[in-house]
Amino acid sequence: MSILAVGTTAFDSVETPFGNAERILGGSATYLSLASRYFSDDVRLVGVVGHDFPDEYVELLRERGIDLEGLEVDEDRETFFWKGRYHDNLSIGERDTLETRLGVVETFDPALPESYRDSDIVALGNLDPEIQRYVLQQVEAPELVICDTMNFWIESALESLRETLDQVDCLVINDTEARQLSGEPNLIAAAAAVRAMGPERLVIKKGEHGALYFDDEGVFSVPAYPMENVHDPTGAGDTFAGGLAGFLDAQKALTRENVKRGIVYGSALSSFVIEDFGPDRLLDLPNEEILERARAFRRLSEIPDLEPAYSA
Amino acid sequence: MSILAVGTTAFDSVETPFGNAERILGGSATYLSLASRYFSDDVRLVGVVGHDFPDEYVELLRERGIDLEGLEVDEDRETFFWKGRYHDNLSIGERDTLETRLGVVETFDPALPESYRDSDIVALGNLDPEIQRYVLQQVEAPELVICDTMNFWIESALESLRETLDQVDCLVINDTEARQLSGEPNLIAAAAAVRAMGPERLVIKKGEHGALYFDDEGVFSVPAYPMENVHDPTGAGDTFAGGLAGFLDAQKALTRENVKRGIVYGSALSSFVIEDFGPDRLLDLPNEEILERARAFRRLSEIPDLEPAYSA
Repeated sequence: MSILAVGTTAFDSVETPFGNAERILGGSATYLSLASRYFSDDVRLVGVVGHDFPDEYVELLRERGIDLEGLEVDEDRETFFWKGRYHDNLSIGERDTLETRLGVVETFDPALPESYRDSDIVALGNLDPEIQRYVLQQVEAPELVICDTMNFWIESALESLRETLDQVDCLVINDTEARQLSGEPNLIAAAAAVRAMGPERLVIKKGEHGALYFDDEGVFSVPAYPMENVHDPTGAGDTFAGGLAGFLDAQKALTRENVKRGIVYGSALSSFVIEDFGPDRLLDLPNEEILERARAFRRLSEIPDLEPAYSA
Repeated sequence: MSILAVGTTAFDSVETPFGNAERILGGSATYLSLASRYFSDDVRLVGVVGHDFPDEYVELLRERGIDLEGLEVDEDRETFFWKGRYHDNLSIGERDTLETRLGVVETFDPALPESYRDSDIVALGNLDPEIQRYVLQQVEAPELVICDTMNFWIESALESLRETLDQVDCLVINDTEARQLSGEPNLIAAAAAVRAMGPERLVIKKGEHGALYFDDEGVFSVPAYPMENVHDPTGAGDTFAGGLAGFLDAQKALTRENVKRGIVYGSALSSFVIEDFGPDRLLDLPNEEILERARAFRRLSEIPDLEPAYSA
């Protein structure tokens, strides 16, 4: 099995109450691939960088087994740059964007290498919905299309986004985006409305409140890992989606049980990544530590047997 | 075993997007006792009403087996009255208080009947912390003291509240109150700070995001029941605490497993009560329906076995 991890490969500068980090490795394709490669041994990155992207970042990805044939280098432009500031309650993940320089992303035209066209799982990071569709056109017969988006596209390109959603199997968005996309303040109603737009499966991420998963069989709720010190929430969402995609890529069947497991592994990986700046915590996690963290989610939410216990 | 349900017995007027209800039965002691009596057959209400409190409301409580020896009638004053308006997203439970008439509560001086002094579990609804302590002084040897409070006391009577907290075993508050009481924006840090004030056990209610329970052994997370149509969130918190208290009253031992079960039953009962105005849904629930709802919480949050599944 194989995963196509599509998105940005970027520089991030972040300011948090714990300190600042300047021009560190970031981008949705980066987090998607660094997370999914813990489970899948065939992770194919699709992205674009500029002339200023350091070799050491390329090496960092290559050393971790990520196929970089689809990483384009645009010598005429700068790498995508995002600068943001987080507020006191990092667990919520609310942030102000201080600066965005599109650079190479302005002309990003991801023509897939021939060797990528047979990818089994496509993980589409947040991008222009038109570009997301262009990628999908080039994949022969994906078994699962997982997709992220953001408020910017909901506000500025809703029609195009809805065309993309029609081709998506599993949408992964946050609660604000779900409410905005559906116009429904109630999350359960919002989920039904979003699923009616195409995605059979929907994950709504809720930051410090965990995540909800919706499919034809109902709802699955996963808590957030209890953390006192969230250092940098950047990339948590892409890490979650990458973990989910990677876990499913490694399974024989796309059962509901496996999706639930994948959601737990995605949650576990994202609970690691927010412990430090950028993708640092995601670089060399021992497998046993990931399993232990995933099992902590089980202990956290395990409800004992319920037998009738009523007054006479 | 027996439960002392202490709080207000009141009139509520509520405005929601689904309609209005005028001067319906409300109050923390009402919800606490109506919920706990599903599990305990010895529920003792402590409250006060005015000359305007209708006999039919008294009968409604009596018919459901609630001991009303501790329900004082103050013929000189009016029953406590609260009027509030909920906003579009009822699942959040945010509301504006439009009117409060203290009436009988201004001079509420709950001297317990002799027969109440041996109560096993004390459930203290939101009241002046000084009155909460006055009640506790009169109970001989409670096995468990469960307590609620609100932002008003945190802001206006913090010292007195902290004296009360020192005598509380299990505090049940919402996330805003936990952050305010502790001064910590992160909920996990807030929980540690609040527990350091006295309560060994702490439940933080998060409305549409469920609840978190903290004790010496760690954290337990329970989801919210997925509901598209919340009609009236009034009383949900007291119903939760009443269900928890009632379930524990019916158990032989105060184990962590039983606390977790009690939290699930409390969540189940509060998911019913918000389906309709006031306590209507809480009046005649079949036991099987409660058990079925509680088991739905298990299915909602059940994580399958997690075995290692990594790339080579």
